[in-house]
Amino acid sequence: MPPFSESGLPLQPGPREPGPLEPGPLEPGGAIGIIGGGQLGRMLADAASRLGFDVVILEPEPDSPASRVATHTLVAAYDDPVALRALADTAAVATYEFENVPAAAVAALVAMDIEVAPGARALATAQDRFDEKTFLNAHGVGTVAFAEASTAEEAAAAVTRIGAPALMKTRREGYDGKGQRWIEHAVDAGAAFEALGGVPVIVEAACDFVRELSVIAVRGRDGATAVYPLGENHHEGGILRRTIAPARASQALADQAERIAAKVLAGLDYVGVIGIELFEMADGRLLVNEFAPRVHNTGHWTQDGCECDQFEQHIRAIAGWPLGPTRAIAQVEMLNLLGEEVDGWARYAAEPETRLHLYGKREAKPGRKMGHINRVKPL
Amino acid sequence: MPPFSESGLPLQPGPREPGPLEPGPLEPGGAIGIIGGGQLGRMLADAASRLGFDVVILEPEPDSPASRVATHTLVAAYDDPVALRALADTAAVATYEFENVPAAAVAALVAMDIEVAPGARALATAQDRFDEKTFLNAHGVGTVAFAEASTAEEAAAAVTRIGAPALMKTRREGYDGKGQRWIEHAVDAGAAFEALGGVPVIVEAACDFVRELSVIAVRGRDGATAVYPLGENHHEGGILRRTIAPARASQALADQAERIAAKVLAGLDYVGVIGIELFEMADGRLLVNEFAPRVHNTGHWTQDGCECDQFEQHIRAIAGWPLGPTRAIAQVEMLNLLGEEVDGWARYAAEPETRLHLYGKREAKPGRKMGHINRVKPL
Repeated sequence: MPPFSESGLPLQPGPREPGPLEPGPLEPGGAIGIIGGGQLGRMLADAASRLGFDVVILEPEPDSPASRVATHTLVAAYDDPVALRALADTAAVATYEFENVPAAAVAALVAMDIEVAPGARALATAQDRFDEKTFLNAHGVGTVAFAEASTAEEAAAAVTRIGAPALMKTRREGYDGKGQRWIEHAVDAGAAFEALGGVPVIVEAACDFVRELSVIAVRGRDGATAVYPLGENHHEGGILRRTIAPARASQALADQAERIAAKVLAGLDYVGVIGIELFEMADGRLLVNEFAPRVHNTGHWTQDGCECDQFEQHIRAIAGWPLGPTRAIAQVEMLNLLGEEVDGWARYAAEPETRLHLYGKREAKPGRKMGHINRVKPL
Repeated sequence: MPPFSESGLPLQPGPREPGPLEPGPLEPGGAIGIIGGGQLGRMLADAASRLGFDVVILEPEPDSPASRVATHTLVAAYDDPVALRALADTAAVATYEFENVPAAAVAALVAMDIEVAPGARALATAQDRFDEKTFLNAHGVGTVAFAEASTAEEAAAAVTRIGAPALMKTRREGYDGKGQRWIEHAVDAGAAFEALGGVPVIVEAACDFVRELSVIAVRGRDGATAVYPLGENHHEGGILRRTIAPARASQALADQAERIAAKVLAGLDYVGVIGIELFEMADGRLLVNEFAPRVHNTGHWTQDGCECDQFEQHIRAIAGWPLGPTRAIAQVEMLNLLGEEVDGWARYAAEPETRLHLYGKREAKPGRKMGHINRVKPL
């Protein structure tokens, strides 16, 4: 038994034809690889199993949330060549639950004739905040003003050019508010640059937005696209606290979001679900804050607010299936359960309007996403 | 590594207190044991994982549908003492997905201080068709006329007493129309008895019903009960083909079904979901055909027609959680996909109103339940 296999079973190829997936869809009974074993991988695995697929998780942490609902788990580094080989031998298509999967891992899988969706272009663009905003502007999608910097001096110049206060973020890595600093005065830029590790950064203009919204969109292998209704998001301490969906929004605003999603999806030649975070400005314009090339926390409301949720939608898209419906059938308030808040599960379980989604994480560290609830009301 | 463990991991006890579960509920992170690895076990495991539970499957067949979505699988006979010991060491509560689980297995688990729900009384009653109907009549619930027989002579006498045509069924085992014969004339009774294996049988009067209905009901550890709206069922060749739910039904009919469910649940001191098959007679009376002490094929519509489906409802009940809502939020037509019908998955996947549920079974034998679809319409 190879040391990275948690299943104890030799990994058997599914009933697939060798070679690339296209043009045919992946048939039920085939296996889907998921890089990453967290809650998004777990909910993707649930959706895949509902459609009759086997699931193989690649995740270095043993006993991960996703591994406990998957057919097989490869406990290995994301870029472990033996594990990637086993993944390619088992699954016909692979996806990932987080955007910081090593580009080399995706390249290795593609070289082994396994489809990876979303593809390398989407992943590379999303992994670098400067490339991401540059891509957006180049495709006619508005963002705040931004500048890159690779030295303390460049950082100070960038803040002067953009104007303080400004937000300095590492170009790569970081999530949930980690790896970023507010710069109140240009003179603080150098120190902030060093505090962020002296790595390449992006400086973003402060944004006086009215609301934070997001649009969850999907594009199939055939280029068909669909968008879910807008969600209105509330963050606390850099972490998503609450999404209300469908958000109150004019048809013009919804149309604007749909146009943005269409540009992003086409520009990335995207396959799968994408989460696009938006700032609604006082003049009605939508700016893109960032996008995540994966299912997204602000799309969890679709589990109980739509007939086909973002997880099934993503599996359908990457498997080459037709997209499912995206209309809302209920009004939902999604609330993240962070850290010890999950200990309040019994109260939520007793609310008839509340659907509970818990991730099975063993330890409730402060701020850790342990689960979420969807409070559902008729539309 | 014990030979019956498919997971390759030593089975670790969850964060449970030793001893019986009551009075407290099972906390998320705890493990639920499921005896049986088929599609019902699979869908129960999905629901359990959504609530943050680990799942341990006990099933002799390797690579079963449920094992592929479960945290651990014990590949062993249902009454294997070593496997039952491992199950009791791992899980705080156990349930089963089929009513023919050996009574000795349940008794062994109970002796090891693991809660089993539904309990031994419900299981024993459901395992014997004569005991089942005797129980029903004793609790004021109507059935067709019936008689038991243990010899060919008794069988002939029973048919004469009940009146031909009559239905002869083995008292134990049998499902989906297996283990039963129609007796057109009393003289055929002896031969039918022998053809059924010479085992104890029950002879049931033919029933000139108007419709076949079913009620899916649930009872919590605290005695709280709830019923889902009635389903109208259509069988072909003894196998369920279609359920339409909520069925068109008067309030009086719905009330009658609810009273029947309440009597059955209380009479069995039941915990969990039960499926009760009903005959609607021309005079408006409901007779019980049979009940299954488990989630039921005629309740699959609740996955897409209710906020809390029968699978989550069962997990909530056996875990000592409050029951979820049972009202319908959509009109559903559930259609079983039997044998090679599952090959039509692509057509169903393309229907926006259709939700697909596939079981991941490797081989599409004729008549085998491979999946189902729920066609959903607004109420």
